Amino acid sequence: MNWLNSDLVGYVAATLTTSAFIPQALMTWKNKRAEGVSLSMYVILITGVILWLTYGIMLSAWPVIIANIITLFLTIFILAMKIVYK
Amino acid sequence: MNWLNSDLVGYVAATLTTSAFIPQALMTWKNKRAEGVSLSMYVILITGVILWLTYGIMLSAWPVIIANIITLFLTIFILAMKIVYK
Repeated sequence: MNWLNSDLVGYVAATLTTSAFIPQALMTWKNKRAEGVSLSMYVILITGVILWLTYGIMLSAWPVIIANIITLFLTIFILAMKIVYK
Repeated sequence: MNWLNSDLVGYVAATLTTSAFIPQALMTWKNKRAEGVSLSMYVILITGVILWLTYGIMLSAWPVIIANIITLFLTIFILAMKIVYK
């Protein structure tokens, strides 16, 4: 996989796993309910994302850093709606 | 953060972001419905997880590799239930 740049793979991966939370955020926003979304899932996920961010910073792995900053915002947004619409 | 090992941070992060999908999997399994779970979210997420796995392998970053193998199984399980209970 010589021709394949690891940073490029990382950025595409980051774009996908980050954008994965956009439909969930939009669906929760549109339905004004989040019954199907697990509260504990998002609390654990957000803690994990903060630690991935720390890991990325320690290794200077930019795809990891950028992906986790954006994912952090999206997951906090979904969690906030889950709490508001409870 | 000299005393802090990046692999350790990575493994804790991996454990958290991976276990985050367990409550969602259990909730979907228990309720026998997955209306609140976004189908497009999981399709994009699974593609992204496969690419993160590739990224981890290219960098020999074991926390990234292990986390994404387990997340892959859990997200495929949730997606499968979403399709079955449609």
